[in-house]
Formats: sequence, C-alpha cells, structure tokens
Amino acid sequence: MSHRPRPRAEKIEALNASGDPPEFSARLWAEAEAKQSWVCLGLDVVLTQLPTNLPHTIEGAREFLRSVVDASVEHVAAFKPNLAFYLALGADGIRLLADIIDHIDHRAIVILDGKFGDISDTMERYARAAFDAFDADAVTVDLYGGWDTVEPMLVDPARGVFVWGRSSNPDADAVQGSSRDADPLFMRIAGEIQSRSALGNLGMVVGATRAGDVRRVRAAAPTVPLLAPGVGAQGGDLESVVRHGFGEAPAGVLINAGRNALWASADADYALATRAAVRELRDRINAVRSA
Amino acid sequence: MSHRPRPRAEKIEALNASGDPPEFSARLWAEAEAKQSWVCLGLDVVLTQLPTNLPHTIEGAREFLRSVVDASVEHVAAFKPNLAFYLALGADGIRLLADIIDHIDHRAIVILDGKFGDISDTMERYARAAFDAFDADAVTVDLYGGWDTVEPMLVDPARGVFVWGRSSNPDADAVQGSSRDADPLFMRIAGEIQSRSALGNLGMVVGATRAGDVRRVRAAAPTVPLLAPGVGAQGGDLESVVRHGFGEAPAGVLINAGRNALWASADADYALATRAAVRELRDRINAVRSA
Repeated sequence: MSHRPRPRAEKIEALNASGDPPEFSARLWAEAEAKQSWVCLGLDVVLTQLPTNLPHTIEGAREFLRSVVDASVEHVAAFKPNLAFYLALGADGIRLLADIIDHIDHRAIVILDGKFGDISDTMERYARAAFDAFDADAVTVDLYGGWDTVEPMLVDPARGVFVWGRSSNPDADAVQGSSRDADPLFMRIAGEIQSRSALGNLGMVVGATRAGDVRRVRAAAPTVPLLAPGVGAQGGDLESVVRHGFGEAPAGVLINAGRNALWASADADYALATRAAVRELRDRINAVRSA
Repeated sequence: MSHRPRPRAEKIEALNASGDPPEFSARLWAEAEAKQSWVCLGLDVVLTQLPTNLPHTIEGAREFLRSVVDASVEHVAAFKPNLAFYLALGADGIRLLADIIDHIDHRAIVILDGKFGDISDTMERYARAAFDAFDADAVTVDLYGGWDTVEPMLVDPARGVFVWGRSSNPDADAVQGSSRDADPLFMRIAGEIQSRSALGNLGMVVGATRAGDVRRVRAAAPTVPLLAPGVGAQGGDLESVVRHGFGEAPAGVLINAGRNALWASADADYALATRAAVRELRDRINAVRSA
C-alpha cells in the first residue's frame, strides 16, 4: 500500500548495525532526547475550524496540516492524528491522513490514535492498516475484548501499542474502576502491560485529568511509555502529570498538546502560533523535568 | 459527504407519515419481517481470498462485493462490513466501503462494524463518519470509555448502536467478567442497555460462542436487538443462540453469517454459493423460530 520507499526501515537497520535496540520505546525516547521534548501534538483536523486564510476544504486541511507539521516538528517527539477526524471526511479524509503521515516522513514518531479493538483476525487487519497501509510508528488500542484481541498488534517490536487503559472522561469508572478502588481494572491492566512489555513496544494511555492515577500506573509499570492526553482543554494538571510520569530512565510520559495548540490561531500566523504553543509546553515540561 | 440523494430520509418520512415509529429497532425488525430473515451477512473482504476468476485488486473486490450483495440481499436483513478490512486497503479501501454501502442502496440494513470508542468530542466525529460520510444505518461501539463516550452515537433514533458487550474470543473474561460470575460487567452493561433503550436505537453484540450468555443478556434486555457473530467458523451453536435470543416481539437476534458464507466458493459461482449459504442459514434459523 505504501507509495514510497521506507526510510524508517533503513533507520531501524542502522540502529541494529550500531548495536542499539530497535524497539519502539527506544526509538521513542531517542526521538524525545534528540528534541529535548516530551510533547506529542494531536493532529485532529476539523474543516470548519481551519484558519480564515485557508479554504475550508480537504485541500485547505492539507495545507494547514503540512504547515503545522513543518513549523512544530522541531519541538515535538510525536504527532498523533486521531482516525475519527479523518474518517469523518470519508475516503478523501483517509487519503489526507496517508498524505500527512508521508509528509511527516519520519521526522517524528507517528501515533495513529484509533483505539482499535476487535477479535484477533480482525485486529490483524487493523495492524495491516496502521503499520503497512499508513506506516504509523504506533497505535492506540482498546482492551475491552481482552489481551488476545490486542496480540496481533504486538508482533513487531519496532511498532508501539499504547493501550487506552485509563481515560480522561467522567464516566470512565463504570468500566475501568475507580481511582479510590484498591484494585481497579485499569491498575490490573497497568500490571499486565508491564509484565507483557518484554518486546519494548507496549505503552499505556492515562488521562492527564487523573494525576493520581498516573502515579499509581507508573508505580505498577515503571519501564513503559505513558501517553497523557487531557492537559489544556480538559483541565489536566501538567506539573503533577509530568512529575508522576517519570519512570525508570529513559521512560517518561508523552504529553499530548491538543486543541489549544493545534488551533492556537485562526489567522494566517497559525503555524507559528502552534509552534509557539508546543515550544511553551515543551519548556514547561522541561522545567519540571530539571527541577 | 454523501454523493447521492438520500432515499432513506424519504423512507423515514414515509414511516412517520403513516404513524409508524422511525426508530432503528422498528426499521430493523420490519426489514427482517419482510424478508423472513434474521441473517446479517458480514462483508469482510480480503483481496487474496477473492475468487479465482476475479483480479485480486480493489476492482476485483468491488465486483465481488456487488455480486455478493445482489445475490444475497433477498435473504438477509442486514449487511455488516467491518471497518478493519477496508482500512487495511488504505484510502482506496475506504472508497470501496462507501461504494458498497451506496450499492446496497437501502435494500437491507447496513451495520458499520467499527467497534468505535473514544471520548465524546471524538466520538462525535465517528458518528459523522458512520452516519453522514458513509450513511450507515447502525454501528458497533466499544464501551471501554464508559457511557458518556457512546452518547454522541445515540442522538438519532433512526440510527442503531450495537454495544460490543460480550465478545466471542477466549480472553474476554479478564475485562468483561466471567459467565460464571453473578454480576459480571457484561451483564451490568446489558442492564444499562435496556434502561437506556427508550429511543429504540440501542442493541448489543453477544458472541454466539456463548449461548448461555445470550440467554442471560436477553433476560436483562428483553426488548433490544441482539447481534450474534461467531456461528460457523468460531463454533457457535446456532440453535441455542436463536432460541435464547428471542425477546419481547419483535425483538430477536441477528445471526451473523461470517467467512463460511462470504467465501462459500472460490470459483466463478461465488455469488450463488453465498446466496445458497445465507438462504440455508435463514432456513435453519426459521426452523428454530417456528418450532
């Protein structure tokens, strides 16, 4: 499906030749170290929200995303397009998603946020979609079906899998268990993630609105990458999440820069505004890291 | 996003004018009654499995799916394309998905099986994708995030939402609870589905490999549509599932015809072979219904 050569494959081979591990988590933290950034920028495009100087069409969205990527890539470890925003635009939106991942061109880690979950032979198709058709570095998955549903995503150590373990929304507890429980489902999942992390490609999504849960999850899963959405619009406490997100080095927590950053300006300066927003977030994170 | 007029909208208005309810469940059971069929045919296309007389390309898949739809539509209440199989083919696959739904053209209910699950503003995008971009009649959703994540899918009574509540795979219990538990998560979800079903558009997916769970779920949710995948390849017991799937009339259980039916023949007679397979399944179901 890929319409271009695979520079990443060469990158991974180069890592192998030099003796460094090609696992996803090593790649992620190498990228974070090189950029001194734990920022992940969400690329959730909405046509009606495009800046006033662009047409509110797929073509406008393409120009918007390319400019945002180019302006911010220096300061972000990862980009995270959410499948829903592209699928809402139909086949043209999925073409746009493929184009944007091509445009990123391995200048940062790409996490395709699809919350994929289905029985195993179907999950194998999602693995092909994410890793072959779109050449993403990592995905998010949903664990409602249990671990055997997720296994087909885990076969390639170089490709990451973030389990959507603890969500940021109010009604999460009915399924995930409560932060006050001694042994809630999300903590059992955190423990399983740690025990299944030998390939170096498992991580967990923990909503930044729940800093206490970030601490508990990190204690149970000290070596895996965490991904925390919900800082900003959803009100997550950045300093606490970063502090609690530290694991055994180099493991840390990717902080997702959401709508506040992507839509930082509705005018022609949009790309520079997003760049400034992710740089500021990076600096705030680094201030906590160096404290 | 839709590139064609909306005959369904007219259908729903006609139903309204005649005083009949336009709710999804009423539409579903009217379709099932008209065809005397509880069969749902899964449209999970794989290029390498296409019949020998067709090119193993997107174009071959298009011809395959059109022929299968035309040959079987008389005997099925619903078609169920699974998003994974189309997304694995990239943007061309998503175009194919849209084309096939267009080709079905309201001759049967379309259930877009995406196991969609994300926080609410993102779920709103999936609702736009499923109901506006693809004009599906129904979707499957994943409830790991809790009920507030599913709500944006529920706003239109005419569009159905099947919650993936009890899956057919071996590892399901770790999250969903065990069939031996007095109050497992999947049973709490079944109860919630019943209590939230006033709009007439909520249903539940229950794996056919767990006939006892179909019985329990039906007791807790007597009026909602059930959808049971897993008969055939996965070994579900058809007779038990149909018997236990009866609810308060007209509520019943859609039986998914999976790979056995879709790939009934690898030769040029493939469409007639699928037609024969769904007709046979329909007859077996009806034999239990009339017993």
